[in-house]
Amino acid sequence: MNTNPYYTQENHGPYEHYNIGKLELEEGGYLENCTLAVATFGSLNSDLSNAILVPTWYSGTSKIMEQVYIGPGKALDPEKYFIIVVNQIGSGLSTSPHNQTADQHGACFPNIRIGDDVRAQHQLITQIFKLSRLALVVGGSMGAQQTYEWAVRYPDMVERAAPIAGTARNTEHDFVYADTLIEAITSDPGFNQGNYNVAEDVTDGLRRHAKLWTVMGWSTEFFRQQRHKALGFDSVATFIDQFMVGYFSPMDPNNLLCMAWKWQRGDVSRHTGGDLAAALGRIRAITYVMPISHDMFFPPSDCQSEQKFISHSAFKPISSIDGHLALFGTDANFVEQVDLTLKELLATSAII
Amino acid sequence: MNTNPYYTQENHGPYEHYNIGKLELEEGGYLENCTLAVATFGSLNSDLSNAILVPTWYSGTSKIMEQVYIGPGKALDPEKYFIIVVNQIGSGLSTSPHNQTADQHGACFPNIRIGDDVRAQHQLITQIFKLSRLALVVGGSMGAQQTYEWAVRYPDMVERAAPIAGTARNTEHDFVYADTLIEAITSDPGFNQGNYNVAEDVTDGLRRHAKLWTVMGWSTEFFRQQRHKALGFDSVATFIDQFMVGYFSPMDPNNLLCMAWKWQRGDVSRHTGGDLAAALGRIRAITYVMPISHDMFFPPSDCQSEQKFISHSAFKPISSIDGHLALFGTDANFVEQVDLTLKELLATSAII
Repeated sequence: MNTNPYYTQENHGPYEHYNIGKLELEEGGYLENCTLAVATFGSLNSDLSNAILVPTWYSGTSKIMEQVYIGPGKALDPEKYFIIVVNQIGSGLSTSPHNQTADQHGACFPNIRIGDDVRAQHQLITQIFKLSRLALVVGGSMGAQQTYEWAVRYPDMVERAAPIAGTARNTEHDFVYADTLIEAITSDPGFNQGNYNVAEDVTDGLRRHAKLWTVMGWSTEFFRQQRHKALGFDSVATFIDQFMVGYFSPMDPNNLLCMAWKWQRGDVSRHTGGDLAAALGRIRAITYVMPISHDMFFPPSDCQSEQKFISHSAFKPISSIDGHLALFGTDANFVEQVDLTLKELLATSAII
Repeated sequence: MNTNPYYTQENHGPYEHYNIGKLELEEGGYLENCTLAVATFGSLNSDLSNAILVPTWYSGTSKIMEQVYIGPGKALDPEKYFIIVVNQIGSGLSTSPHNQTADQHGACFPNIRIGDDVRAQHQLITQIFKLSRLALVVGGSMGAQQTYEWAVRYPDMVERAAPIAGTARNTEHDFVYADTLIEAITSDPGFNQGNYNVAEDVTDGLRRHAKLWTVMGWSTEFFRQQRHKALGFDSVATFIDQFMVGYFSPMDPNNLLCMAWKWQRGDVSRHTGGDLAAALGRIRAITYVMPISHDMFFPPSDCQSEQKFISHSAFKPISSIDGHLALFGTDANFVEQVDLTLKELLATSAII
């Protein structure tokens, strides 16, 4: 039951669907046929040592990872690596509220955790792609949360980890910020407790949600330097309407809420009874912690306080006044810094 | 017509009401009997040279200025100075949507600009208090906006100016942030386009508004260091419920919206056809620009970019991880820094 024309191969492909079967969920219940939408680039080498896994962020899909971060000559080079981009559960391409049938459709979709995604990806990686090692796991924002979860949960599989603009344990500030995003949507009478007919019924809520992303997603410096003009918009109002609202408005509200709930609760210390240092101490990957200088909700200080618990790690902040949404690739200098940092990381010798 | 029990002498007094008569408004129309609620401390000296004006911020009243910033031994010392704290229009104590009669009541209240407040205060200062000089104008946030407006509009009257955590021309980022506050309230069906019966009808909207203040009012570092615990709340959820929601929920929504609209449009360059440098060039006050290090919406960089246009000025950032709401006086070290900086400023010799 896919009634939303946004989530298509035309918009986000090419990707392939892999049914990994029944996925037990950490919050209880299960997805009967958990299906992951996966885009791959390049090919496996003979000793299966060149696989890179890229999980996706809130609202993002494999397409933006392909467009911004993957290509010949880049760190994520399909001529050298087999790059696997997995769209997260709830993304709209993989199993998600909007594309499930009756008893798990829409508002009835179960709560999903970062750990559910990572276990689903582990199934994919080990049973479908038959891999036992990943040369690198790299992702931004919720992709960083999944990267940390991978490195803690499967320390013997992850040779290198690059969490960009994200944390291993979501902060309380970030939780409240995500709450405001959620409430922007759920407060719309058209949301109707998740039982709307089409995304357009929730236009006002999605618009407020986009405006909150405008405030927190970029940075005060972004606006002071009028970066919206460099991006081709003559006013902030136009930038909000066309870029921010335009980006989010076709998305399915329940899909966004599924991801937001998951984002709020990303926490590797669930493996160690709440002991973050112990959880991060399990990581054997060479880990580059890569926050963005002007990120307003995954700020460098929060990321650095986690980095110190990771044995083979380095703090590698990336400078950009575009803040968190520099992830979109709006700042060429940001993309270049990320690329150089990932190249440096990929050149290191793995510990495991 | 005051139907809101929050705005009383018991909660915010003592203050006196001064009717300054008819106030023409910059956006058109007028307030027939513009009444300012004013709290004074200390007494005028014989040569009328010791008056200090303190305008108030969004949602704040003269009471918090008294409690946090005024007292014997402090910079704002009633034993040395005659300190005049003027509650802004829309504050709930001065002329405001909730206390006006029929044709200007509630949603019918006209749009007010920072310049309207400052002209009303000018009437008060010159015609009621018979003063031609102010030793200092000092205010935080919207109080800083009014401070700048005073220094630009009446350069021969303001000897010293101390805008704390605010700008002379509101930034585009800040405008959008205030928009999210406004929409948190107006999106509540109980708001009913401003025609609610009591503030409680807008409980959900006021709650969302308080949560947005939680995200942007403090800082990521505030939460990382669990400052809410130092403030006496055992969890962030309790902190939000009791402190943030508790603070805002008794306030009148139309009053808040009146102030928010005004805040969004604070801009001294209205006097110079949009030329900010020219407007700030008019200032003759010795001006200490005092942003707060961790302020998420009046950040130091935005304040510093204005300071360079002011002739006799110094950039005096105040360090506090409490961010913008350090203004509340939650961080004793912040209050002390402000106090020392104001003492230093008051010890300078005026140019005019």
